[in-house]
Amino acid sequence: MTSFSFTIEAQCSESWARAGTIHTAHGSVQTPIFMPVGTQATVKSVSPEELREVGAAIILANTYHLMLRPGYQLIADFGGLHQFMHWDGPILTDSGGFQVFSLGHLRKLSEEGVTFKSHLDGSAHMLTPENVMQIEFELGADIILPLDICAAYPCTFDAAKEAMERTHRWAERALIAREGYQSKQTLFGIVQGACEPELRQQSARFIGNLPFPGLSIGGLSVGEPKAEMWDLLKYVTPELPKGKPRHLLGVGSPEDLVIGVGLGMDMFDCVLPTRVARHGGLFSRFGRINIKSARYRAEHAAIEEGCDCYTCRNYSAAYVHHLARTDEQLYYRLGTIHNLRFMLRLAGQLRAAVIGGTYPAFRDDFLKQYTPASEQVRENQREKWKAARSR
Amino acid sequence: MTSFSFTIEAQCSESWARAGTIHTAHGSVQTPIFMPVGTQATVKSVSPEELREVGAAIILANTYHLMLRPGYQLIADFGGLHQFMHWDGPILTDSGGFQVFSLGHLRKLSEEGVTFKSHLDGSAHMLTPENVMQIEFELGADIILPLDICAAYPCTFDAAKEAMERTHRWAERALIAREGYQSKQTLFGIVQGACEPELRQQSARFIGNLPFPGLSIGGLSVGEPKAEMWDLLKYVTPELPKGKPRHLLGVGSPEDLVIGVGLGMDMFDCVLPTRVARHGGLFSRFGRINIKSARYRAEHAAIEEGCDCYTCRNYSAAYVHHLARTDEQLYYRLGTIHNLRFMLRLAGQLRAAVIGGTYPAFRDDFLKQYTPASEQVRENQREKWKAARSR
Repeated sequence: MTSFSFTIEAQCSESWARAGTIHTAHGSVQTPIFMPVGTQATVKSVSPEELREVGAAIILANTYHLMLRPGYQLIADFGGLHQFMHWDGPILTDSGGFQVFSLGHLRKLSEEGVTFKSHLDGSAHMLTPENVMQIEFELGADIILPLDICAAYPCTFDAAKEAMERTHRWAERALIAREGYQSKQTLFGIVQGACEPELRQQSARFIGNLPFPGLSIGGLSVGEPKAEMWDLLKYVTPELPKGKPRHLLGVGSPEDLVIGVGLGMDMFDCVLPTRVARHGGLFSRFGRINIKSARYRAEHAAIEEGCDCYTCRNYSAAYVHHLARTDEQLYYRLGTIHNLRFMLRLAGQLRAAVIGGTYPAFRDDFLKQYTPASEQVRENQREKWKAARSR
Repeated sequence: MTSFSFTIEAQCSESWARAGTIHTAHGSVQTPIFMPVGTQATVKSVSPEELREVGAAIILANTYHLMLRPGYQLIADFGGLHQFMHWDGPILTDSGGFQVFSLGHLRKLSEEGVTFKSHLDGSAHMLTPENVMQIEFELGADIILPLDICAAYPCTFDAAKEAMERTHRWAERALIAREGYQSKQTLFGIVQGACEPELRQQSARFIGNLPFPGLSIGGLSVGEPKAEMWDLLKYVTPELPKGKPRHLLGVGSPEDLVIGVGLGMDMFDCVLPTRVARHGGLFSRFGRINIKSARYRAEHAAIEEGCDCYTCRNYSAAYVHHLARTDEQLYYRLGTIHNLRFMLRLAGQLRAAVIGGTYPAFRDDFLKQYTPASEQVRENQREKWKAARSR
């Protein structure tokens, strides 16, 4: 029934990096890949044609947001997400679980599932492993995820274990529920285990052995230091079946992509590249620049020398700076296009490096040049975004 | 020196409508034409490529905004507006006068010119007929306008006369100052006279007889009822030289375009089509719809049946409604593209009607179908925009 397959074309001999191809009913995806996030059935400020142009091969959409608005029944009535949003490439939907757990006091967890109140109108909803399969079936993405539990950070070993074990039980329920739907969708499994190496290993083995054609690693990048995240992956990857694609859920800064590939990850998604773009943070090979900074006021050159994106091919940094400072809508688009192209070009370069046998050198060179945002900057940014959202 | 010319290809036998072609150094413009407004060197939320696609042949930019930010010297340093904003078609810049007069207590008028304080940082500036010629020379638009005085609405006959007479003196000073700049730019004259038929006639004769290759009619659509505006044009047009293009400054709803053409106008500009789009108001042949209205929630059809714009060719009204309700950036673009395409298709239809000798029937059919926003709705909208701006 499913038209899904994954083939590995090359593997790095000095790391766990590999280059592969995922086939779906809506086309192929060459890995490693970065997936732009289209939370509300649109990747903020760019069109589907522009996504194609930056090299996007697959995008992600959020079940939580879409089930509430415009509603999954409505999207089903329009033939599913692809038709509704005019994107004919592969789509991955998450399960809604992560957003629901972020609601804090608005949700209540039980073995059956999770009840929550909509952040929009306070209406009551319930997600269960079973109805999430139905909702994602209606949304019609190519790759779908089962309901899981993302433990809080930090949390006790017992809490981490409890969340993981329930996630495992829910995974089995999702697999059974999934059989009720005739579709070409592919259900990935989700590995949990919080920041406990032992649990991460257990979860990778358990989920890896279930009949999921692909695997997402959840519950990372939730506040823990990056070094800890990479360390945990070192326990996870060796336990995973080699032949299935591996998706690092919600992770995707430039340095994450470069490092994550070496730790055996094939797919990445994150709002970071699009979100920081909207706040003036644009990627270059040396790190993130702030285009609103006065230093770009009269800069004739493009944002990044040699960049092949629409923005850099057609506009000076000074013009992009002007748009950003005057809060013009075109800025959000030009900034987003630049950052997405940066991420997708990087994914392509990583793939070429794996195939060419030069991944370790590529990684080391990249990380030597690229200065990531510090933990402090990341923390401040999170606070700013939270404040912006609550307004 | 100038590469400007205007030829008239057809004239209506029952009205003052005509179809012509304006030639500029950056290409030709077939009239009647609607000019999208790119206040800050960008037409809000659309790219230059999208402007081309909707059929934009010439755009307008605001001297007032650009002189303050990013500054006209900076734009000159980038080779002028065309290069700075990546638009290689014709551009028209206004003189900045209209915006300065809207500043109210922040400006002070004398025979020499007008001093004002920037709405951005309170810094003091002066505009004179002479330095406006320099500023617009630096900006490098194809068509430039001289400093004029837009009388308040309502105003006394004496105030209207005083503003008009000073506008005339300033027009002569602008013509002299203009000679100091070697460029392919074309300086239009501006007709004033407030709501006084006698003054409008005088001003049309006076400005029409000066060596301006084109004429803008200023000081209309400043609060007077539409019927009064059309009535005033009936006094202006017969006094204008037939061979020069006529620009109705700041006027441009769909019905304005249709009626204005019959009163001898060739060029129109207005922020209305782009501004109402951003607030959910989208044009159809029957009038303006509110895409945020619940009636579009599940609408499978496009915004307007048969519309050839990018939005209508690719998206359901329901999807556009979803984007508008969730305040997604892509909405602003899709709505703006639809309204601009509507305006430019309408301009093309008006031209074809004039050439085909069917303008009066086209006008009557259009106005029979199209329900314009009422004066009350227009007033409420102005209040809402004012409030939005002051936030």
